[in-house]
Amino acid sequence: MISVRRWEIIELTYTGRQDGNPFTDYAVNGTFTGPEGVKTVNGFYDGEGVYKVRFMPSEEGEYTYEVSGTFMNAGTASETPLSGSVTVLPAAENVHGPVRVANKYHFAYADGTMYYPVGTTCYVWAFQNEPLREQTLKTLSEGCFNKIRFCVFPKHYVYNLHEPVSYPYEGTPMDSSVLTVENFNNYNGTAEGNSWNFRRFNPDHFRLLEENIAKLGDIGVEADLILFHPYDRWGFSEMSREDDLFYLRYVTARFSAFRNVWWSFANEYDLMRAKSHEDWQAMGACVMENDPYDHLRSIHNCVEFYDHTEPWLTHACIQRQDLYRTTEYTDEWRKAFGKPIIGDEIAYEGDIQYAWGNISGQEIVRRFWEAAVHGGYAGHGETFLGHAQELDAVLPAGKEVKPLEKVLWWSHGGKLYGESPARLRFLQRILAETPGPGLKRLKREWDDSVAVPDVAGSADEGGDHDYYLFYFGFFRPSFREFNFTDGCEYEAEVIDTWNMTVTSIGRFSGRFNIPLPGREYMAIRLKKVQ
Amino acid sequence: MISVRRWEIIELTYTGRQDGNPFTDYAVNGTFTGPEGVKTVNGFYDGEGVYKVRFMPSEEGEYTYEVSGTFMNAGTASETPLSGSVTVLPAAENVHGPVRVANKYHFAYADGTMYYPVGTTCYVWAFQNEPLREQTLKTLSEGCFNKIRFCVFPKHYVYNLHEPVSYPYEGTPMDSSVLTVENFNNYNGTAEGNSWNFRRFNPDHFRLLEENIAKLGDIGVEADLILFHPYDRWGFSEMSREDDLFYLRYVTARFSAFRNVWWSFANEYDLMRAKSHEDWQAMGACVMENDPYDHLRSIHNCVEFYDHTEPWLTHACIQRQDLYRTTEYTDEWRKAFGKPIIGDEIAYEGDIQYAWGNISGQEIVRRFWEAAVHGGYAGHGETFLGHAQELDAVLPAGKEVKPLEKVLWWSHGGKLYGESPARLRFLQRILAETPGPGLKRLKREWDDSVAVPDVAGSADEGGDHDYYLFYFGFFRPSFREFNFTDGCEYEAEVIDTWNMTVTSIGRFSGRFNIPLPGREYMAIRLKKVQ
Repeated sequence: MISVRRWEIIELTYTGRQDGNPFTDYAVNGTFTGPEGVKTVNGFYDGEGVYKVRFMPSEEGEYTYEVSGTFMNAGTASETPLSGSVTVLPAAENVHGPVRVANKYHFAYADGTMYYPVGTTCYVWAFQNEPLREQTLKTLSEGCFNKIRFCVFPKHYVYNLHEPVSYPYEGTPMDSSVLTVENFNNYNGTAEGNSWNFRRFNPDHFRLLEENIAKLGDIGVEADLILFHPYDRWGFSEMSREDDLFYLRYVTARFSAFRNVWWSFANEYDLMRAKSHEDWQAMGACVMENDPYDHLRSIHNCVEFYDHTEPWLTHACIQRQDLYRTTEYTDEWRKAFGKPIIGDEIAYEGDIQYAWGNISGQEIVRRFWEAAVHGGYAGHGETFLGHAQELDAVLPAGKEVKPLEKVLWWSHGGKLYGESPARLRFLQRILAETPGPGLKRLKREWDDSVAVPDVAGSADEGGDHDYYLFYFGFFRPSFREFNFTDGCEYEAEVIDTWNMTVTSIGRFSGRFNIPLPGREYMAIRLKKVQ
Repeated sequence: MISVRRWEIIELTYTGRQDGNPFTDYAVNGTFTGPEGVKTVNGFYDGEGVYKVRFMPSEEGEYTYEVSGTFMNAGTASETPLSGSVTVLPAAENVHGPVRVANKYHFAYADGTMYYPVGTTCYVWAFQNEPLREQTLKTLSEGCFNKIRFCVFPKHYVYNLHEPVSYPYEGTPMDSSVLTVENFNNYNGTAEGNSWNFRRFNPDHFRLLEENIAKLGDIGVEADLILFHPYDRWGFSEMSREDDLFYLRYVTARFSAFRNVWWSFANEYDLMRAKSHEDWQAMGACVMENDPYDHLRSIHNCVEFYDHTEPWLTHACIQRQDLYRTTEYTDEWRKAFGKPIIGDEIAYEGDIQYAWGNISGQEIVRRFWEAAVHGGYAGHGETFLGHAQELDAVLPAGKEVKPLEKVLWWSHGGKLYGESPARLRFLQRILAETPGPGLKRLKREWDDSVAVPDVAGSADEGGDHDYYLFYFGFFRPSFREFNFTDGCEYEAEVIDTWNMTVTSIGRFSGRFNIPLPGREYMAIRLKKVQ
């Protein structure tokens, strides 16, 4: 009798053929029948003669399965039965299932619990050494973030020139010892010296990823997997469409059963010159076909926005186009794309030499709040050079940058040194306290953005609501005037989004003023007294 | 023998007819002949039988004049000769003449000295009581600002409900004791209870203005006179075109001879619903016809930009349309209008309840620097409620705002409490130290805006310059990489625009890094070693 909890994984392991190329030559799949009907999933080859089939049950109750395919060694009996039954128990505490789009512009877990994304980015944390990976998980367990965006392929970029702990394919990488901060840009895409077999995966690489996906799931963090990206010296960004789809079928077969997986088709798709629009659409179709759980799907830009209205995309993942104004555009983005908005890469807290990675904690927190009160969401990252773990001091003049030495959260994970994470955890709390389902911006007053529950059909201007969140950003009014004509009483709280305090001010009705300290980053929360 | 200094005023005073309406019935004008040729100027009636003719000589040397008109009492001889000669001596120290457009996007005094405007706004400081006016002049004498924008008509608005010390016309104003913060908006334009004769000016009102224009000139401050504005309960914003032009002829006859006068045709022209586009053009033509010195002319918007390419406008005076991004648009504005750009109303340092008046000192100073490194200029204002001179503390909750009590620099002048003025004086110093003529933005790097001298024909991208100003705004790089291929040496200084320090870093050539403290509001200045 096998049992798992709802939204956990039923994993069936078989020994099978090793001759030829098991990745291409043999098939394995499973059919699961239960309260949700009949679902067929692809299995995958995990190396050394091992084949696996994974399934995530979405309901409690009795399931049966049948595994078939060409993977079996002729004339041998399987140790694991090819068919059987599984009892699905209630979900573990704090397990709510995969995240789905809810209420058009927002997200909820499968069990209906609202999910307000407050994510971070560590591109290749999973390919760092084990102590650093464990440090990253420890940092994430402190609860500032409920999503992390990271890559399936390793990354080649400034501060990212060293070798990853593993590669996705059988083969050998180019010699990285030739790289310097001056010349690394000469090695792009399919550089000389690489030798890969794009028909033979390295199962260790994917096993490492899925172990970490599981660990993220244990601490309530969604894994926003970046499937492709342009920061590459190995040629993984320039594979053929056939290779891309072959890779996606493998990835979906391995990872789809993890409840906390999201598919981010690209980081900066528009820098991947070898890909056409049709390529992206083909990849989208491939993942939709091979992911039986319909995990969230997005694609992220460098400069040019992707057309996020395309039906294969569930939400819009947006890098800001304007250095000064970012998530303040969330209203426009909601209108343009009609889907949830996540501003991912709105600049990172840090002090590196690039404007995308050296804004203050105050500014990134402000951008998160602007996103929130505009009915959208944002993404965090941290790029402190001064705090890099292997670097003692800021570089003196004339000293060469040594990118191989640096550990920056944005790419490698590790510890967080910034001032924003604690404030983002506070924002998460404020969002969790909204009545739901999500917020939308009612209007822009001169002195604030006014957010109310994103209830379909509620008046965009005027009208009375039970809940208001007024956010002042970098504006610093010393008081705010209100004039309610509904005769109702409102409970007023002043929120200091930077100092993370909520101060009850009292109950008011009609015309009244709420005093404010004349500081930046304040908000007022009004709740109708029921 | 009369003598004046160059760019001072030759004022000729006559006694004349008082019967009828001297403002309409009699003319007085003067013709001045000297090194600059022959110029005819209008005189004006100054009340109580006194007529005046003013002339500002633009050159040194001998001038002759002849005064004529219908103003003389029949059969009486004038005490002041109707013709004569004047010797114009060299200009006083620190007197450089009127400000003109120079190098397309910049300004210089008539003697060629560059003028980098760092202005402030105190709308109706000239109509406050004398101690407050003197306080304003004392504050301005501290040298933070070299321009002040203010009104010829009194102002009716929140925090501006009390009576001005004088009115521009003969007549009586409506009773202001009925006004409250709740009802003042009901009294707009031609409100009941006003009774004015738009053909009879109140000379005291204009005398008060010109005394203050002269005092501003003495301390090196340009008087950017706002000729019309919509914040009105007396009807001055809704006069007929005939009345407007009659008023402009009087204003130009009185004020044109002051070297430091600029004509700002409107504050927020687009809120003056009674004016048509043709009205503004007629007003522009009238001032051009009646101001023999061709003082600078601009018009300022609330929301909709005026078309500043119209030939009667010498420069573009722009209120920002975007709450978040303001002077960062200066490049676009230069391209759109092809004239000097002054961002006037980019939000004020303060803590009042409106977003236009409650940004931080850091933010307004940043906006000034963004303007400067984009090859434009900006305007200051201050709106501190907590610091209002008659108010001891921030209002407690529920306490009514008493606008009659407040004195805010933005409208009334007085003292400055903000953190920005000292930093703006520092910016003025940095601008004065540029090689000239003015700056332009070479390009936007990811991590900074790079300004170079605005030399016509110099490459917009790349190319070598003798002077570079790199401004980082709210970005906080811990170092900046340079790579010069010209073989030249550059002297490098790190400028902390907030802490007002300039630190010499040394001389560099080729590829080098300049360390920065990882704080906001830093700049780097590079000067080629000659």
